[in-house]
Amino acid sequence: MSILCVGSVALDSVETPFGKADRVLGGSAVYFSAAATVFNPVQLVGVVGDDYPVDELRFLEERGADLSGIEHASGKSFFWAGRYHYDLNTRDTLDTQLGVFAEFEPKIPDSFRDARFVFLGNIDPALQHDVLNQVTAPEVVACDTMNFWIEGAREPLLELLGRVRILMVNDEEVRQLAGQANLLKAARWVQDQGPEIVVVKKGEHGAILFTDDWMFHVPGFPLEEVFDPTGAGDSFAGGFMGHLARSGEVTPATLRQAMVFGSALGSFACERFSVERLQELHTDDVAARVEEFRRLTAFETHLAVEQYV
Amino acid sequence: MSILCVGSVALDSVETPFGKADRVLGGSAVYFSAAATVFNPVQLVGVVGDDYPVDELRFLEERGADLSGIEHASGKSFFWAGRYHYDLNTRDTLDTQLGVFAEFEPKIPDSFRDARFVFLGNIDPALQHDVLNQVTAPEVVACDTMNFWIEGAREPLLELLGRVRILMVNDEEVRQLAGQANLLKAARWVQDQGPEIVVVKKGEHGAILFTDDWMFHVPGFPLEEVFDPTGAGDSFAGGFMGHLARSGEVTPATLRQAMVFGSALGSFACERFSVERLQELHTDDVAARVEEFRRLTAFETHLAVEQYV
Repeated sequence: MSILCVGSVALDSVETPFGKADRVLGGSAVYFSAAATVFNPVQLVGVVGDDYPVDELRFLEERGADLSGIEHASGKSFFWAGRYHYDLNTRDTLDTQLGVFAEFEPKIPDSFRDARFVFLGNIDPALQHDVLNQVTAPEVVACDTMNFWIEGAREPLLELLGRVRILMVNDEEVRQLAGQANLLKAARWVQDQGPEIVVVKKGEHGAILFTDDWMFHVPGFPLEEVFDPTGAGDSFAGGFMGHLARSGEVTPATLRQAMVFGSALGSFACERFSVERLQELHTDDVAARVEEFRRLTAFETHLAVEQYV
Repeated sequence: MSILCVGSVALDSVETPFGKADRVLGGSAVYFSAAATVFNPVQLVGVVGDDYPVDELRFLEERGADLSGIEHASGKSFFWAGRYHYDLNTRDTLDTQLGVFAEFEPKIPDSFRDARFVFLGNIDPALQHDVLNQVTAPEVVACDTMNFWIEGAREPLLELLGRVRILMVNDEEVRQLAGQANLLKAARWVQDQGPEIVVVKKGEHGAILFTDDWMFHVPGFPLEEVFDPTGAGDSFAGGFMGHLARSGEVTPATLRQAMVFGSALGSFACERFSVERLQELHTDDVAARVEEFRRLTAFETHLAVEQYV
C-alpha cells in the first residue's frame, strides 16, 4: 500500500568541498520519495512553481510514485542554497526563498485519503494537522519537524504529537523539544506526549530508535567520500517508512530492519549531489549495503558472555 | 597473561550537574586497570606522590592487579580538576598540577618485561618509547595519545606508531593526527604509519574499529543518567584489552567482542564518580549489559535482504 508523503519539493544549490550543483532536485518530499520508492509506492503531495523541472521527477513515477498530488502554482519554486564546510558536518545557508511554498495548503486527492502509512515532512505543524484532517484511516503516521517550529509553533506541534505514532527528528531537535540534554530522557518525554516510537537521527553517528521497552541503534555507514549530505535525513525517513509499508506491519523485527534500511538509504544519498545516487539505485545495491551493516555491527555474544560468568 | 599498563595515577576533583567529588582516584592507568581486571590481571606502572591514598587501590590487587610497578616519589601526586557542563559532553579544566608525574620515567620491573599485551596510556611519546624499549616480546601493543602530543611531539609519536599494533584515540584526535576530516580516510592514514588496527572512540556515540578489510561499530550505551564521564575512554580501553588478553588471541571475533566489552565498561564508568562503579562490578553485570548491547544492535538480515532482491 502506498505511503502518503507531504513535504517540500524544492530546488537546491549546493556547494561542498567536492564541487557545486546548481538548482537541482531537492526538498524533503523529493528525497523521501526517491528513497521510499526503492521499496514501496509513494503518493506525493507538495507544490512547485513555474520554474520546476517536473520532467526530472518522472523517475519517481517509473518506480511507482503517484505525482498527481503535486500542485502547480504560479510563481517560483522553493529554493535553498547552502555551502558545506570542509568536514561536511556543518553548513551555512546562503539563501532561502519560499516562493509558492509560502502559501502551500496541502490538498490531499481523494484517491490518497485512505492511506495507512503517512509521512509528514518538516512543514508548519498547522499544515501537518490539515493533512491528518484529510486522511480517513491513518495507522502509521510519522512526522519530522525542526527548530523553527519547535520555537515558533510549539503548541500546535505538541498537539500534533498526540496524533502521531512515530516522531523522527535529529538529536539537537529532540533535546530542544524536550528541554532535556539526555537523549533517553528526551525520548521518554516525547513518548509522554503521544508518539509510541521516537527515532533520533544523529548524522554521521547513525540513528537510535526508542520504544517503551526496547531501543535499537544503527550506525551511520562509514563512507570514504561524503559527497553531499543534503537530504540524508529525509532519505533515512524514506528508507525507514518504505520498508515498513512494504512489510505492512510494525513489529520489533520490521522496525529494526527499517532502521537499517533508513541508514543505508541515508548513506547512498550522501554519495552524490541531489537524488542522483538514489535515482539509479537497485535493490541489490541496497541488499549489499544491508549486508555491510550486518558485518559492521554483528558480534557473537554467547561465547563472550559465557566466558566470564 | 597479565596486561602491562603504563599511565597516570592521579587524583581528580570533579563537578557535574549531579554533584562533586573531591580528590578521588583518577588517571588513565587507574581507570584502565579498574576495567581490565574485571577480565584479566594487570601489571600497573605509574608514579604517585606522598599524598596518594594507596590503600584505595587495594581493590585492584584483590582482582589480580600487580601494583609493584607503582613508584612512590616525594612530592604531590598528579592532580586534575574539572567541571562538566549540563549536557556532560563538554567540560572545563579548572586545574592541572603534574606534581611527581612531571619527572616520571617508567621503570618496568623485571617480572613485567615479558608482557605480551601492553597498554600505553596517554603520556609523552618519548616515555611510551621507553616502555617499549624495556619489554622483551610485546605482541599486542595498544596506545592512546592526545592533542597535546599530536601538536607538540609529532615526530616521536609517528615513530611510535611504527611500533604499535592498535591505536586507540577519539575522533577529534585521529582527525587532527591525520589532518583528515573523513574518519575512514584518517584511519587509513594511521594504518599507513604502522598500526594494523585503529579504534576511534566517539564518546556517547560509541566507537568504531578499522582494520585493513573490515570495520566494526559499537554504540555508546544509552544511559538515563550520565553521572560522570571522566575516565570513560580509559575504561573502554581496559574492557577492550582485558577481553583480548583473557581470550589470548586477536581475531575478528575477539576484536568485535572486545569493542562491545569496551563500550560496556565505558558505560559503567559513567554511572558513578571515579572508579566507584567499576570497583563493585561483577561479571554478571557485564554479561547483562553485553546482552543489552546485543538487543540494541541485532537485526535479522535474511528476511530483509531477500524480500527485495
